[in-house]
Amino acid sequence: MIHHHTSLVNGSFDQEISALDRGFSYGDGVFRTMKIRDGQPVSWPFHYQKLVADCAVIGIVCPSAELLMLDIQQLFPIDEFDNAEVSVAKIIITRGEGERGYAPPAVTIPTRVIIKSAMPTYAETYYVQGIRLHLCETRLALQPKLAGIKHLNRLENILARMEWREESIFDGLMLDTNANVIECTMSNIFVRVGGHLYTPDLSQCGVAGITRQRILGLESLLGLTCSQATLTLPELLSADEVLICNSLYGAFQVTAVGNQTWEQQNLASKIRNILTHG
Amino acid sequence: MIHHHTSLVNGSFDQEISALDRGFSYGDGVFRTMKIRDGQPVSWPFHYQKLVADCAVIGIVCPSAELLMLDIQQLFPIDEFDNAEVSVAKIIITRGEGERGYAPPAVTIPTRVIIKSAMPTYAETYYVQGIRLHLCETRLALQPKLAGIKHLNRLENILARMEWREESIFDGLMLDTNANVIECTMSNIFVRVGGHLYTPDLSQCGVAGITRQRILGLESLLGLTCSQATLTLPELLSADEVLICNSLYGAFQVTAVGNQTWEQQNLASKIRNILTHG
Repeated sequence: MIHHHTSLVNGSFDQEISALDRGFSYGDGVFRTMKIRDGQPVSWPFHYQKLVADCAVIGIVCPSAELLMLDIQQLFPIDEFDNAEVSVAKIIITRGEGERGYAPPAVTIPTRVIIKSAMPTYAETYYVQGIRLHLCETRLALQPKLAGIKHLNRLENILARMEWREESIFDGLMLDTNANVIECTMSNIFVRVGGHLYTPDLSQCGVAGITRQRILGLESLLGLTCSQATLTLPELLSADEVLICNSLYGAFQVTAVGNQTWEQQNLASKIRNILTHG
Repeated sequence: MIHHHTSLVNGSFDQEISALDRGFSYGDGVFRTMKIRDGQPVSWPFHYQKLVADCAVIGIVCPSAELLMLDIQQLFPIDEFDNAEVSVAKIIITRGEGERGYAPPAVTIPTRVIIKSAMPTYAETYYVQGIRLHLCETRLALQPKLAGIKHLNRLENILARMEWREESIFDGLMLDTNANVIECTMSNIFVRVGGHLYTPDLSQCGVAGITRQRILGLESLLGLTCSQATLTLPELLSADEVLICNSLYGAFQVTAVGNQTWEQQNLASKIRNILTHG
């Protein structure tokens, strides 16, 4: 019988977290979610670079790529037959343990956690036809000092995600407190207007995911200009095509936001193919 | 030899936290910090009521007062001689464990953690003369859905607290992104203008602590009107008297914010005495 470990904490299998960990006390850390295929994290250079950059924003020195890769190899051994398939790794890096109080200790040892989970199963219709979005009432607050990074302070996303329960809704569209379109609870968003592809500027809030970053680099392959811009809800609703993206599903076309609907088109599947095989 | 336990997790001594706890993954929870005197939490009815209310804002059902009091009695037994003195309890309530994803599971069992620590030692000068504040560059983002509650998403406070290291600075004054005065990193703030005592309105951001709430109820004892108001930095700097408060130290006069200084006055010590003995 093979024992299937599900997490690694500071290099040890299935350990728990100290009640004094600042990740637990204050959400003082960052995370990443990525596909693992044949024991290897997909798009690892993008993920690791983003992890290092996000850590740096809040003053955490990210563990080395070598150490994290060693962790991943332990948790996703390629000799386990079920790992020939795709699964998911979530990497959490926190500032480490600390006594009560917001000031970080003079010396901290970051806590690193890898959690293994199954790849979500997406309905065939999401790939073929597209997905529906709920328009969230919960707005994203403007905080330029934390904008763009995937930190552990995620109560806004939770409140937004609690707004709907319908299985037919894939994700929720979030505006900021100025009513500009920012992202979805677990996805970034793009709109096509003619030959231009836009994604919201994330200098005030939101998470700048690596799939968003990769799509911004596909200009020549897509034959579209790609840029970041301020995007209002009316602009999104009148766009020619809307799509969302993240590291797990790649890209899906948005076919409905509330009452606004879009015909099935091919940009999302084209992008998904490039991301996977390009 | 008596073993001194330092924490209680779901009623068990010195246990750790699951890596899947949503408090760790997302800061999905709330907390309270309070004094323990002779094994009893000081101002417990205020603290428990606030804990229940804060939990409710994010949809967590707070454990019963009886259960939490039982925990506190276990962690702070009155027969340990060192508990005749004052120490500190931090209570953390999270939504409990959950698989990856922002949607809370259909059924969750909240995680309850009590952490024991020593009462901070405050310099005699803080009581006699007052304290100095750093004016923080880090602003509080406007998020009415989370305003007032003491949740576990505290990266703004951490970034603000990381702005100074001088021992002579007791706390940092924080403005919101509209430049209104809100609070300090670990304290609420009041200003006296003539016979009026004002504390910032916290409907957009900030933590509405129970000592702030208690002070707002001292109108007749203080002979001052007490109210919440929008407060600009110039208004604070030109106030007759400024004081900060929290559950551990009670109230301290503010004698300096940057270059602005105030003469020693007696409102803070008067309030401290009423809070302690009144």
